[in-house]
Amino acid sequence: MGFFQKLAGAVERNGSLLCVGLDPDPERLPAGLPAGTGAVAAFQRAIIEATSDLVCAYKPNLAFYEALGEPGLEALHATLAAVPHDVPVIGDAKRGDVGHTARAYARALFDGWGFDAVTVNPYLGGDSLEPFLEREDRGVFLVCRTSNPGARDFQDLPVVPGEGLPARPLFEVVAERAKEWNTRGNVGLVVGATYPEELGRLREICPQMTFLVPGVGVQGGDLEASLRRGLDAGGGGLIINVSRQVLYASRRQDFAAAARQVALALRDEISRLQKAVLSGRP
Amino acid sequence: MGFFQKLAGAVERNGSLLCVGLDPDPERLPAGLPAGTGAVAAFQRAIIEATSDLVCAYKPNLAFYEALGEPGLEALHATLAAVPHDVPVIGDAKRGDVGHTARAYARALFDGWGFDAVTVNPYLGGDSLEPFLEREDRGVFLVCRTSNPGARDFQDLPVVPGEGLPARPLFEVVAERAKEWNTRGNVGLVVGATYPEELGRLREICPQMTFLVPGVGVQGGDLEASLRRGLDAGGGGLIINVSRQVLYASRRQDFAAAARQVALALRDEISRLQKAVLSGRP
Repeated sequence: MGFFQKLAGAVERNGSLLCVGLDPDPERLPAGLPAGTGAVAAFQRAIIEATSDLVCAYKPNLAFYEALGEPGLEALHATLAAVPHDVPVIGDAKRGDVGHTARAYARALFDGWGFDAVTVNPYLGGDSLEPFLEREDRGVFLVCRTSNPGARDFQDLPVVPGEGLPARPLFEVVAERAKEWNTRGNVGLVVGATYPEELGRLREICPQMTFLVPGVGVQGGDLEASLRRGLDAGGGGLIINVSRQVLYASRRQDFAAAARQVALALRDEISRLQKAVLSGRP
Repeated sequence: MGFFQKLAGAVERNGSLLCVGLDPDPERLPAGLPAGTGAVAAFQRAIIEATSDLVCAYKPNLAFYEALGEPGLEALHATLAAVPHDVPVIGDAKRGDVGHTARAYARALFDGWGFDAVTVNPYLGGDSLEPFLEREDRGVFLVCRTSNPGARDFQDLPVVPGEGLPARPLFEVVAERAKEWNTRGNVGLVVGATYPEELGRLREICPQMTFLVPGVGVQGGDLEASLRRGLDAGGGGLIINVSRQVLYASRRQDFAAAARQVALALRDEISRLQKAVLSGRP
């Protein structure tokens, strides 16, 4: 079963467009966990057990595990083992390198870690993405328009995409190419929630593509605007990622129950807004 | 001691602009190594022992270690331990993510692995690079113009960098920004040897910056043209990276001696061309 089918199954079953980002920060771990290197794994397992019926996917960001060294990678193994088999996992790695190196990264992420999908950086172009794209059963999310202030530095620059064509922002050109490269139906885009207008432009360019949307929550993205601009014609096509707001809902022993409460509230708020947006459409 | 001082020391001591890329491929390992997971580490150690007086730096590419899972990371540890303390190591990771995630990557690469320098992807902009740049004693090479065919897809697109300014290729805009961001003197660029003209343009834009140049050797980059276009006014400013041509010089038991022969020939050829280029300059 391909990533997007597995995703659709979880969206349907859990009535959810919410993805929980699993970005462990040892300094923010709550009380009541075993001491030492097992703490992160125990924390993540508890979060997953408390939320797996409320999400459409999980998204571990590899940076946070790599920052912990070997125990971090052990924690990632334990985390992946705790995710139910019918909930897809997106490895947020944003890798990008030339062909034969990209092939090694694809092996590491898809075969080593077993991610159902990954995020990749498009700056090195089509042949750097092909080793990921050729894995038809896996999802590949191209980083397109990110949620940070620095996104303006290059992603928003006006580009002349071809002889005689009008200038348009680089991220729109990335989206156009993503559409061309999506010959196997396994491509998505990463689009930050902090810029709903850009999300709307990308939905026009890619009416049927799934967008992974970080930036709701701590980063201040506007959920309602993101859904209004980003939902596809069928009322889906978005994966709304929230990380810290769920993970660190409480630093007390009730952290898992608190995370569940936040995830439940987010899932239901997304569903309510989704219905409102769809009923307001012409 | 900062990365660029350490680099200058090795360049001077070994009379070399050659960097050896340590990209282990288990399928290409030579004969005569211990069986099992220790083979990669033993291979790399032998390569380093045979070449460390001939290089200005080593550049392990993390993809190849990550593709091997846990034994690969153990091999990377062993590899790093084998590098003499006065030869700098560039972690080729090409990471790029939003601020707090970039901070985790910087911790993983600089504090965890202890790399003297890293490669980073600029697509997410200035704030995504700051956690690396702020480490004044470490080098940060921004991927600017890569050596693969897909580099044309985005890096070469004509960009209008500001109101009323003429369009120029995106990679040149990246170089301009790199110069601005180089307030601590620790920034370099990754520029493929397969496009010497672009290397020349970048040398005009950044007369004093160090360029890490992959693509010589298997990828077919032109060494003479790269030196002619890329050397700075002082006859340096380039790190010429070669990986497979050195690593896999022989698959027999003499692999280390063969690697040394190739590295020696490359070092001397670079020096010869360097002198020829400098003597031919007005």
